[in-house]
Amino acid sequence: MDDRRLVKLVGEIIGSERIEDDCAVLPFGEICLVVSTDMLHETTDFPEGMTDWQAGWMSVAVTLSDLASTGAEPRYLLLAVGLDDANRLSGIMQGARDCCVKYGAELVGGDVDSHSELTIVSTGIGSAAPENIVRRKGSVPGDLICITGTPGCAEAGLSGYAEHREALLEPKPHVREGVLLGRAGVSAMMDVSDGLVISLYDLMDVNDCGFSIESEKIPLPEGVPADLAHSMALYGGGDFYLLFTCSPSQYPVSGVDAVVIGEVTAESGVLVDGVPVEKRGYLHTWE
Amino acid sequence: MDDRRLVKLVGEIIGSERIEDDCAVLPFGEICLVVSTDMLHETTDFPEGMTDWQAGWMSVAVTLSDLASTGAEPRYLLLAVGLDDANRLSGIMQGARDCCVKYGAELVGGDVDSHSELTIVSTGIGSAAPENIVRRKGSVPGDLICITGTPGCAEAGLSGYAEHREALLEPKPHVREGVLLGRAGVSAMMDVSDGLVISLYDLMDVNDCGFSIESEKIPLPEGVPADLAHSMALYGGGDFYLLFTCSPSQYPVSGVDAVVIGEVTAESGVLVDGVPVEKRGYLHTWE
Repeated sequence: MDDRRLVKLVGEIIGSERIEDDCAVLPFGEICLVVSTDMLHETTDFPEGMTDWQAGWMSVAVTLSDLASTGAEPRYLLLAVGLDDANRLSGIMQGARDCCVKYGAELVGGDVDSHSELTIVSTGIGSAAPENIVRRKGSVPGDLICITGTPGCAEAGLSGYAEHREALLEPKPHVREGVLLGRAGVSAMMDVSDGLVISLYDLMDVNDCGFSIESEKIPLPEGVPADLAHSMALYGGGDFYLLFTCSPSQYPVSGVDAVVIGEVTAESGVLVDGVPVEKRGYLHTWE
Repeated sequence: MDDRRLVKLVGEIIGSERIEDDCAVLPFGEICLVVSTDMLHETTDFPEGMTDWQAGWMSVAVTLSDLASTGAEPRYLLLAVGLDDANRLSGIMQGARDCCVKYGAELVGGDVDSHSELTIVSTGIGSAAPENIVRRKGSVPGDLICITGTPGCAEAGLSGYAEHREALLEPKPHVREGVLLGRAGVSAMMDVSDGLVISLYDLMDVNDCGFSIESEKIPLPEGVPADLAHSMALYGGGDFYLLFTCSPSQYPVSGVDAVVIGEVTAESGVLVDGVPVEKRGYLHTWE
């Protein structure tokens, strides 16, 4: 069983519309609250050599990226920390606070617990005007497929390419870009944290169309042999760039650095250079 | 090092006013958002024999209790679940959903992860009019000390008293009571989840006064020998009743079942029958 199947099971219990996005979008008076929670823990999420400050930073960054992917502005953040060693708390909280400050959120509280394995759960609360909210659902055939950064960088960092180590350990969520893309009214959006190809599959799951991208248009991590860079860009996880679709008339979006990598098609399928690709990327699996 | 010392360290990083309560109270337009997050995991929080449904229920209940202790109405809940076994997810989510439904909250999302040890982090979002918010801070000498249930029941359940097993495994947060006490404007409030005496110490930490309670006024778990029941009531954890202080003129509060167990004093100290008691209850400790 993989985590996407488990999430479907959750949908049967709390409502299938609740699991279409990384965030819940909640009506709250005249605005929308956007909330997201993410669990990270040492063995699966924190690469070897990561400092406590970086673990705190990353925990917040992944949640801010989820909020950004809906076009929401981040407001508040809570951190629940399960500590294997009490001495780690200070570095973790400083990293978390610094990431919040950098992106305009406020770290307002949390919980501290002892745990056999360092486990950090961050919960973010953002807000947006209802008309600026972007979901995964909304792509239509003819839309452009765009990305705000170079996919594969974190994977390159994980594979030992020193110039990409920071992308792996101190990811920079595209908060400003998400807000601008929300205001511009792009048709669908998500972050590529599980990998580019699997994210296109995620978009296909909730959109009645296909996603066709072209190799030569995809930016690749520098300093990596071409074939490997190509594979990292398609299947590597850990990048917090935004993948979005928009009508050709909306592109480019003022103030947002992005590249067009393909087009939304009427026919279902995820294609690279016209050829269907397997659904592969970052997946938790359970036996 | 214990968790209260760690929380102080957190206060130095995110602001000391942020750690006075179990919840963060956040201005949001004309109302207040009240948010809280709690981490529970198998070895320390889920008693042997607990079902997955009960683990899900309890995880939500502790968070709803935190919200209730500020007078907030629960609105939304997120659950991050780290699973040692994927087959447990269904029961956990059903228990969480049922607890939400029972108390008027909506389970809107979360995260699913694999983990060596079952770990559940629930995050609650409530709301209240600013004038109805109650904090830990606010007690003044002469106030009555009151409690909305019988402390020690969960501890009795943990010790094998079958009639108290449900109090341990399926705690009932006093959501309705919290909202009514908030509207009534009681002076201070918190839940007694870590134990009655340690909660009085927590109140003393943020209030410039003392707390004196009388044994004979404290309701005791039934079916337990008197001395043991007394000790369980003072020091046992796991009960989700509300401890509050209010002026004598405010008592009783319409619609709220509570008993007066003592009085707020001008002089600092936590006294039982006029004698100072040690600060003891549920504390995580780290070496």
